[in-house]
Amino acid sequence: MTTPRRLAILGVGLLGGSLGLAWKSSVSSGTVVGYGHRRSTLDQALRIEAIDEAYETPEQAVQQADIIVLCTPVGIFEDLLRRIAPALPAGAVVTDVGSTKRSVVRLSGQILPPSARFVGSHPMAGSERRGVEFARPDLFHNALCITTPTESTDPQALQTVEQFWRTIGMRITRLSPEAHDQLLADVSHLPHVVAAAVVAMQKDEGLPLSGKGFIDATRIAGGDGGLWRDILLDNRDNLRSALQRLRENLDQFDRLLEPAHAEELRQWLDAAAQRREKLLQQKLRELSD
Amino acid sequence: MTTPRRLAILGVGLLGGSLGLAWKSSVSSGTVVGYGHRRSTLDQALRIEAIDEAYETPEQAVQQADIIVLCTPVGIFEDLLRRIAPALPAGAVVTDVGSTKRSVVRLSGQILPPSARFVGSHPMAGSERRGVEFARPDLFHNALCITTPTESTDPQALQTVEQFWRTIGMRITRLSPEAHDQLLADVSHLPHVVAAAVVAMQKDEGLPLSGKGFIDATRIAGGDGGLWRDILLDNRDNLRSALQRLRENLDQFDRLLEPAHAEELRQWLDAAAQRREKLLQQKLRELSD
Repeated sequence: MTTPRRLAILGVGLLGGSLGLAWKSSVSSGTVVGYGHRRSTLDQALRIEAIDEAYETPEQAVQQADIIVLCTPVGIFEDLLRRIAPALPAGAVVTDVGSTKRSVVRLSGQILPPSARFVGSHPMAGSERRGVEFARPDLFHNALCITTPTESTDPQALQTVEQFWRTIGMRITRLSPEAHDQLLADVSHLPHVVAAAVVAMQKDEGLPLSGKGFIDATRIAGGDGGLWRDILLDNRDNLRSALQRLRENLDQFDRLLEPAHAEELRQWLDAAAQRREKLLQQKLRELSD
Repeated sequence: MTTPRRLAILGVGLLGGSLGLAWKSSVSSGTVVGYGHRRSTLDQALRIEAIDEAYETPEQAVQQADIIVLCTPVGIFEDLLRRIAPALPAGAVVTDVGSTKRSVVRLSGQILPPSARFVGSHPMAGSERRGVEFARPDLFHNALCITTPTESTDPQALQTVEQFWRTIGMRITRLSPEAHDQLLADVSHLPHVVAAAVVAMQKDEGLPLSGKGFIDATRIAGGDGGLWRDILLDNRDNLRSALQRLRENLDQFDRLLEPAHAEELRQWLDAAAQRREKLLQQKLRELSD
């Protein structure tokens, strides 16, 4: 397996821009090309040296590329795959950074030519900020990347893609596209929706009384509505089942909210606190590894 | 109005200990006395100089005090008020740091002698940490303190209490005990319950995939179960109505979660993001004032 010499980044926003910066700071040679639908974004990406060459069509950007990374919102993947399909170099490896995986894996199988090799990826890095102006080379460092191979994934392409993410400092976990989407509905998509609902249900006169806890708890609701709309719609079956489980947990809490159940209520609260603390310690260990 | 010369802190945990440190760093003379039911906590409070004198009964601690601050969990307030009632110096001002206000205002009216003057306070500072070992003199600095006077509150005592909080750097807002409990159910108690439920509903295999967003969103669920149990039970009528409004907001989201409503869904998500951003900017302005 050789290091890709020509990397094409389709979509140079926060993730695409950071990917260019991270790759260029990790390898000593090679070329990074970028596609963006806004000229100003491409110019900014060139200026901060996230990319070496800029193209205004994805068809041009993928020419001669060894590895191609889809970095647009997931709602645009289908259109993007249709546009690059006829232009892909034979043997090119294609991956993505999307927060849902079933749809892009299915679409790539339907749309890309047999000579192209697709591997689904979800590098779990980001920010509620959007745009190449927030790009930074360490965005992916020490974070987890989930790859989602299937029975039809080319083993060598999988190796290439996993090595690619490792080169910029990521840890790898493999999951099926189905398991990925189910678990991410619980740990990422549901918390986003809940944070937005907690903001939405507030009265104007209550908000000035909120403290640091409220600001932290709702930070994830600060993301771009269009980006998240695509993710939530794409994963709506799993998200609905996560919402149903959340409702059941809230109903259970409601039943415990009586002086007669004070001890069980304390246990329910302590169990959540302890579970989170254990997770936090595990995350801190990972970061110090 | 004169600065209190003898401050009695009943309960020297995170809040009580921080209050002693804050007061002593803000005034040049006077004495801070502390009551705690554990000798080791009192010794630690003496060691870090959060208090000058330590007492193992609240009756002893309130002797000759000008201002007395209840800093135990709210579930202990009734017992504490019954114990100090016969021992209070005439004219003493009593306040508290409880996260609910209707019950302590009602109980103080029922239990304290007419010569004692009670004013409800909720200094909105704290941490998911517990214990005097986390006490720090700047815990209250620049934070908001809600006072909850009623028709029977002594105006001079109200002034004394508000000046007390201002001396340690707090901003003051007045609310009725009823309005306080209703608004705090929305901005504080509900977010705590929701964060705990989001942790509780996770599958073990999903948690390792959680990111920084999940850790932040659930931080408030890390608090002590016993403390929070008291608060949530005490405010359960308002909390239930907040939970009901959250359920309605989640149901509304659920109806929008269809490709046919993609535009409304984006607007719902963007509205929450923008509302939170506006709040964040306002909080940042307050801190820089």
